[in-house]
Amino acid sequence: MPQSPSRKRAAIVGAGPVGCLAALALSKRGWNVDLYEGRPDLRLPSSKAASGQRSINLAISHRGIAALEAIDPAVADQFLQSAIPMRGRMIHTEAGELDSQLYDRDGQCINSIGRAVLNEGLLEEAAASENVRLFFNHKVLSADFDNRKLMVKDTVSNKEFQVDFDFCIGADGSYSIIQRQMMRVVRMDYQQEYITHEYVELKMPAGRGVNGEPVFLLDPNHLHIWPRHSFMLIALPNRDKTFTCTLFAPSAELDRLKTPDSVLTWFKFHFPDAVQAIGEKLLVEDVLTNPRSPLICTKSKPYHYKDRVIILGDAAHSMVPFYGQGLNCGLEDVRILSTLLDSEGVDPSIQEAGASEHAVDRRLLRVLERYTEGRYQDLLSICDLAMDNFVEMRHSVTTLSYIFKKTVDTILYSLTSRKMVELSSLRPTLSRVPYPSGEPRAWLPLYTMITFRPDISYATAKRKAERQARILEGLGWAGTTLVGVVGLWATLLVRKTLTERLR
Amino acid sequence: MPQSPSRKRAAIVGAGPVGCLAALALSKRGWNVDLYEGRPDLRLPSSKAASGQRSINLAISHRGIAALEAIDPAVADQFLQSAIPMRGRMIHTEAGELDSQLYDRDGQCINSIGRAVLNEGLLEEAAASENVRLFFNHKVLSADFDNRKLMVKDTVSNKEFQVDFDFCIGADGSYSIIQRQMMRVVRMDYQQEYITHEYVELKMPAGRGVNGEPVFLLDPNHLHIWPRHSFMLIALPNRDKTFTCTLFAPSAELDRLKTPDSVLTWFKFHFPDAVQAIGEKLLVEDVLTNPRSPLICTKSKPYHYKDRVIILGDAAHSMVPFYGQGLNCGLEDVRILSTLLDSEGVDPSIQEAGASEHAVDRRLLRVLERYTEGRYQDLLSICDLAMDNFVEMRHSVTTLSYIFKKTVDTILYSLTSRKMVELSSLRPTLSRVPYPSGEPRAWLPLYTMITFRPDISYATAKRKAERQARILEGLGWAGTTLVGVVGLWATLLVRKTLTERLR
Repeated sequence: MPQSPSRKRAAIVGAGPVGCLAALALSKRGWNVDLYEGRPDLRLPSSKAASGQRSINLAISHRGIAALEAIDPAVADQFLQSAIPMRGRMIHTEAGELDSQLYDRDGQCINSIGRAVLNEGLLEEAAASENVRLFFNHKVLSADFDNRKLMVKDTVSNKEFQVDFDFCIGADGSYSIIQRQMMRVVRMDYQQEYITHEYVELKMPAGRGVNGEPVFLLDPNHLHIWPRHSFMLIALPNRDKTFTCTLFAPSAELDRLKTPDSVLTWFKFHFPDAVQAIGEKLLVEDVLTNPRSPLICTKSKPYHYKDRVIILGDAAHSMVPFYGQGLNCGLEDVRILSTLLDSEGVDPSIQEAGASEHAVDRRLLRVLERYTEGRYQDLLSICDLAMDNFVEMRHSVTTLSYIFKKTVDTILYSLTSRKMVELSSLRPTLSRVPYPSGEPRAWLPLYTMITFRPDISYATAKRKAERQARILEGLGWAGTTLVGVVGLWATLLVRKTLTERLR
Repeated sequence: MPQSPSRKRAAIVGAGPVGCLAALALSKRGWNVDLYEGRPDLRLPSSKAASGQRSINLAISHRGIAALEAIDPAVADQFLQSAIPMRGRMIHTEAGELDSQLYDRDGQCINSIGRAVLNEGLLEEAAASENVRLFFNHKVLSADFDNRKLMVKDTVSNKEFQVDFDFCIGADGSYSIIQRQMMRVVRMDYQQEYITHEYVELKMPAGRGVNGEPVFLLDPNHLHIWPRHSFMLIALPNRDKTFTCTLFAPSAELDRLKTPDSVLTWFKFHFPDAVQAIGEKLLVEDVLTNPRSPLICTKSKPYHYKDRVIILGDAAHSMVPFYGQGLNCGLEDVRILSTLLDSEGVDPSIQEAGASEHAVDRRLLRVLERYTEGRYQDLLSICDLAMDNFVEMRHSVTTLSYIFKKTVDTILYSLTSRKMVELSSLRPTLSRVPYPSGEPRAWLPLYTMITFRPDISYATAKRKAERQARILEGLGWAGTTLVGVVGLWATLLVRKTLTERLR
């Protein structure tokens, strides 16, 4: 991976999916890219053993796929081959019944994938790219953005050293050091909020088929939900026929699960079918030993500083995981940054000798300013929608009024819009998704816009959905009024008839 | 200032007014108190020279006085002697007229005082207290709350060392290191927001009287405001007959004031009388050389961690300065903490030998939990009110509808409540202000509740004012309707009479 000395240098902090995709995007544009990651290379066998119990399975949808396709179609292909499509939610009711709610009239799916699988694929591509250098076990300690320097520590050799950059991307997650360092020099509006719920991951093993082969114990083409109002359990399928289950519950509820007995009693009462599938021994072990993790929502503005640093993904906007959009949104950040780099014609070549290497790059500055201005409302919207969706997932999906509204929503959708994709096609036709701007005229369910329409921005989707909800409400009132008027008319008619007869 | 080895040790970070008052409160309860301040002792002549242009003058009102009285009546006395009472706002209109708007029907005042004067008085008291040790030029670098240790750097000797504490108070202002360190171990909801306005301080010198003695150039018993809608100038009196002026303006507006000409033209157009009083030369010098400072609003929750650390004052809640409550609120924090320490009977003596020195102090834990729970809504309320009041100060005070509403407000106040204080008495009868809880039944203007009634919590005041505003609005509608009905009746009467006459 030789780097050209005549090119500008980008330092990307964080080699998760967002950092890797950003590295690919810049490398393809001719930048020299150095990617710094505090943890060891997750492709090493030792890392794999350590990260077994770590992160929520990912549900990748069209926004994520569109971003991958825009920057690296090979990764998008590879990803779609290893993902498991989920067509809808499978609600496990308290009465023990199963209720399948499809995500989309046209059969469009979201895709379950282990975070590590996606991350490895992207790391492989980055490692194979020209101009990209990977530095694992390299922790960024501090940043001097004005002088374009990072202080980095090699945690293996325990040495600290300075590195230079022309452009820095912070893709280092919820507790981002780059974001924290930016707060020292930028007047940044910032907000962080923990919800009262925590999550614990549990493993549901594969079952055994008639010939002893591994089989799924639940339908693999659904995202399974056990909504229990104040808490819920979900399960996403893996390629090895296991499911990754996640319990979301208020801290106070989890505090009560301290002994094997209390765990079993509680789970058997609320999730009897899940206990059977997971197995009592494994369940107790996982609940008592797996870490309880907090759920945080963060918002920042601006996302950039001068012409030289930007934060993307969780570093800029951690959201609660209930819309399944966290990583989709992070990948879309990269796609939008990339589109803006194109549209402003940013050029990584170091210009004529004599010009200061550190002169303000006005085109890059303009890209970063446009990114902050254009992206802010979108990121606010999806963070808020993710928070709202928690109530939907653990409670509303079980109510009659929700099912009724969803039905009307789908009917209006069918009446006003054409089918977008073939039912049989898992892969949407996304290769040329525009920079989101306009708003389609058809009636579209919110979930459809957020999940399957990367051409509609999050903010537009939220606004349009609010307007549609007001119309639905109006229809509700109109319906009630109609029923009332008809009822009144019928009553009067009956009374008149009776009165006439009695005369 | 000998410390008793059998007492628990409190480390207070920040020797501003809030930190000093907290030191006094704990010292009087028998704690050994170590007060760490990163800056030099502001009582030294060298410090005084350096801090000349620093901070907004303080407008102390009854909440601040009540807090001082509850903890140290001597300081309250001393403070009232050096403060200048301000009875109302003096509006300098664009037409060049003066309009005095009294703060209170009964003549109650807010008090102008230099921050340094108050801080010095409190430092003197702390220095003279038993059990208090002062450490200036001691910067806290980090905290290990679980092991009750602070890492401190003596910036004179450049040595770093560790100090122990049983209880730590962070009173280290808007960019609090204690708050930042707490965020590493507490799941803290946190928000920071910069407004688009910045401020610049200007000095208005004393004038010369007939015998050459210094005289005030404006009425000293008012807080002067030049409201200009999107920006404003204010002026508060000092004992030496000068005024401290503060210009609040959007950053974009200030960007235009780059040359002596642009400064003079702009000021003469918007504030001709202020230019005359300040003098052109001094004005230009101050505007071009004094720092432009940002205005930040921060909110946190919780304010404590376990039984061992709490943040008070700006460290917990920086607010914009437009209700004049920032320091009043910080001092009230100390009074409320102090009341809770009393009510839970927290005892600083180290108990029987053998008991672990670091066992959880359940009474202190209960105090801190009650503080966070009880204080949160109050602090949210005053932060929001301060933000709202900016629009009132720079714009609404000039509108007819504001003046009309304020008049009705005052009339209702007079009709429903008795006079609280003698007109001649500057000093309110505050020595026994209860822990705020109940809500009075009388009609009370919001400003009166916030500024003159420390027995009413900020949250209660905000709630009550919102209810009163709805009633006022209702009265407005009722009035409009009445006018409409009377008008209609009159019209019909006239028409009838005319018709009858014409027959």
